[in-house]
Amino acid sequence: MSTPTGDFGLIGLAVMGQNLILNINDHGYTVVAYNRTVSKVEHFLANEAKGTKIIGASSIEDLVCKLKRPRKIMLLVKAGSAVDDFIEQIIPHLDQGDIIIDGGNSHFPDSIRRSKYLEEKGFLFIGCGVSGGEDGARYGPSLMPGGSKAAWEHVKPIFQSIAAKVGKEPCCDWVGETGAGHYVKMVHNGIEYGDMQLICEAYHLMKEGLCFDHDKIGDVFEFWNKGELDSFLIDITKDIVRFKDDDGSPLVEKIKDTAGQKGTGKWTAISSLDLGVPVTLIGEAVYSRTLSSLKDERVRASKILPGPKNKKFEGDKDLFVKQLGQALYASKLISYAQGFMLMREAAKDHNWDLNNAGIALMWRGGCIIRSAFLGDIKNAYTKNPKLENLLFDPFFKKAVDDAQDSWRQVVAQAAILGIPTPALSTALSFYDGYRHERLPANLLQAQRDYFGAHTFRYLDEYTDDKHPKDTDVHVNWTGHGGNVSSSAYLA
Amino acid sequence: MSTPTGDFGLIGLAVMGQNLILNINDHGYTVVAYNRTVSKVEHFLANEAKGTKIIGASSIEDLVCKLKRPRKIMLLVKAGSAVDDFIEQIIPHLDQGDIIIDGGNSHFPDSIRRSKYLEEKGFLFIGCGVSGGEDGARYGPSLMPGGSKAAWEHVKPIFQSIAAKVGKEPCCDWVGETGAGHYVKMVHNGIEYGDMQLICEAYHLMKEGLCFDHDKIGDVFEFWNKGELDSFLIDITKDIVRFKDDDGSPLVEKIKDTAGQKGTGKWTAISSLDLGVPVTLIGEAVYSRTLSSLKDERVRASKILPGPKNKKFEGDKDLFVKQLGQALYASKLISYAQGFMLMREAAKDHNWDLNNAGIALMWRGGCIIRSAFLGDIKNAYTKNPKLENLLFDPFFKKAVDDAQDSWRQVVAQAAILGIPTPALSTALSFYDGYRHERLPANLLQAQRDYFGAHTFRYLDEYTDDKHPKDTDVHVNWTGHGGNVSSSAYLA
Repeated sequence: MSTPTGDFGLIGLAVMGQNLILNINDHGYTVVAYNRTVSKVEHFLANEAKGTKIIGASSIEDLVCKLKRPRKIMLLVKAGSAVDDFIEQIIPHLDQGDIIIDGGNSHFPDSIRRSKYLEEKGFLFIGCGVSGGEDGARYGPSLMPGGSKAAWEHVKPIFQSIAAKVGKEPCCDWVGETGAGHYVKMVHNGIEYGDMQLICEAYHLMKEGLCFDHDKIGDVFEFWNKGELDSFLIDITKDIVRFKDDDGSPLVEKIKDTAGQKGTGKWTAISSLDLGVPVTLIGEAVYSRTLSSLKDERVRASKILPGPKNKKFEGDKDLFVKQLGQALYASKLISYAQGFMLMREAAKDHNWDLNNAGIALMWRGGCIIRSAFLGDIKNAYTKNPKLENLLFDPFFKKAVDDAQDSWRQVVAQAAILGIPTPALSTALSFYDGYRHERLPANLLQAQRDYFGAHTFRYLDEYTDDKHPKDTDVHVNWTGHGGNVSSSAYLA
Repeated sequence: MSTPTGDFGLIGLAVMGQNLILNINDHGYTVVAYNRTVSKVEHFLANEAKGTKIIGASSIEDLVCKLKRPRKIMLLVKAGSAVDDFIEQIIPHLDQGDIIIDGGNSHFPDSIRRSKYLEEKGFLFIGCGVSGGEDGARYGPSLMPGGSKAAWEHVKPIFQSIAAKVGKEPCCDWVGETGAGHYVKMVHNGIEYGDMQLICEAYHLMKEGLCFDHDKIGDVFEFWNKGELDSFLIDITKDIVRFKDDDGSPLVEKIKDTAGQKGTGKWTAISSLDLGVPVTLIGEAVYSRTLSSLKDERVRASKILPGPKNKKFEGDKDLFVKQLGQALYASKLISYAQGFMLMREAAKDHNWDLNNAGIALMWRGGCIIRSAFLGDIKNAYTKNPKLENLLFDPFFKKAVDDAQDSWRQVVAQAAILGIPTPALSTALSFYDGYRHERLPANLLQAQRDYFGAHTFRYLDEYTDDKHPKDTDVHVNWTGHGGNVSSSAYLA
């Protein structure tokens, strides 16, 4: 049997897998490709991979045999049981120290489980977030690897060579142990949900509020893409709204307005609820997708429920477009601030040592949320690695302050016009709540003590001998009912 | 050994347990009381239970021996492992057909599991939502029992006699199989979170926006409580804001503005994300509690982050109070509509046959969210049990339409003034989104196809031979990159 020549194995020849293989091949590595449906391998070699060094495998065993040790086998298959199935099929053929890489959108608890499981058997595991869509995979994705630290040195040269570059810096670095890579990718996707929702709301306001046609809307996105909003999503939105169908009309107008609501955005929202972090923008973005998916019910509702009497915008449209750009920018900043707040709590929870500047760099290029703005975030965290909140960075603090009047006008105007802006609005509510030393939760605590004897605490400035600091107080608000405070029963 | 005389056993003598026992005793039933710390039983009998027919138990076995068959043993202990521990302790002493009732705030999947577990052993289980706080437990709670249908006839007379009454109708009826009772209670608590958050936002707007003192705010809540907002929570809020501390100043002003973020509200939000229902109001209410709990960080933020230049309200304050009442009412209606949408999807998911009118009646009295408004909801569902959405009921449709101009003014004003109104705002965004036949998700679907080849569909009105109905379309937006549509990899 001939000595193996494969540098890297990849299983799963859907669009991402095919493009990633071609990308790795471009960088001088010999890739061994395998797919459950083997005919797909042959088709790939005869077409997209024609004239490359890419080798095909006819079985898992064949794939493993064709790889140099320590073997590096990447899975790009549907997240879930398929990943576990392939891991079980691969294990019997592996040697100690071989590396299995899951490049799918796996849920981070699965990656935590898999890294422990494979390490116990003497193998290494990397759960790697991959972003950039089909183009990113082909020409330079953002890669977020986490798991078995010992595996990093072996995959680092390959990953950093194929990853997107910002200047000379690759958009790929070690994220952390166990599920850290997939957690950070999950938050990336959640932020992606938020960015897309914000863009949709801006689009909706221009289309329905300002009555702009799609070419005009394209001009606005093109203009925005030259400034602080410069990003991949704004850039493709410009192309999309201008894209004409065969009949010459804007294709986007014909696309059904129903978005799926499952997946990584949902996971991010659930994680934020579990960790108690107000990641409201992602939450609203996920809910907006679920609302869009209730298409038939909305169609019925649209025939029953009236909107505001006067839906006509009566201001200066050019000014409003400027204000809208500011609202979009400020809201986006809130979303990223919330995302980093979430990762901070998750890192505490899982003992991950996350590097915020490194994460910002990984997201700076290659991935779907890549933007100039992420360069500013990297700078903020490089300047001050201990920065408590993005909003506290002088650059961003000024940016929000400069934007806030416009932002408030846009949110107010949308409410008056009857155009839904859940993400733009919740971002503003978060900003105003976050900067309030005192929120009305004092009343809420009083209500809970009133009906459930849940107790409350005095504000530090009102504590005294009778009501010492950090002691729970119950008041008999009604004059009747028990004086027993609630210990066991939490309403 | 003497024949048992106990009609009903109850374990757990925290405030809810004690009051529920006293309530059952008032209705002529002999209750056997037990608590893990037995001294609590003695203290209860010597004090709150003095002069009643209530019997104490010194052990689980003693408790069981003192009960007539089929035994009815209710647990009012902290949700979680404590419930399973007690169930395991009780089982050895039970006979076939005996009934264990969990009256705590258990998570519905636990009640599904426990009902199956106990039924397999020949016992019966009821997971019963109990609401009303300490006063409700004492004088008439709202009870939401679900689980083993066969148990219902045995506990029905007791439960319906101790439950709150609306006219002659008890606020207690059978909800459904397995975890239906605790699911409906969970949604009740989620709605409770929403109602409390809405009231807090109204309070905040009056306090900071209108600069009303607490007595004046109390007058507004008293006025609101005489109209369509008539409810327990508005009523107690009036008392709370007027309640003076020993020094004669409003106690609520001294209460620390940090609310816990765990529990049933969080479960409701997570369930809505899992089922794909936009229950945005509860989501924002939970997030608001988490933001309030970041007190120290907010204090620092308040010294760094600027608000709007002009925070002064310059309108007609009396008019704004009227508009605020309308905004509160309309937002509350949205929250309930969302809650019933959630229960509809959960019922499909778990094969529960939920009776919306019955649920509205159970919530009409006794519980924390009890209100005149729930009477209107009951009427809507009684008139039309197949009502697709509360907002489609003529009464509520008109109510929202009458309120919407005020509602929009309040949301707009709050944005300008810099006072956070996440719940009032998201409610309006939901209304405007829900009544839109077309949302901007068409752009979102185009973006996903652009960067991830996720495909999209044409709107029905644009389908033709080339693009048939319900077929997935992928466009090569860029002119380069693959034409492979994404099947396995979901970004």
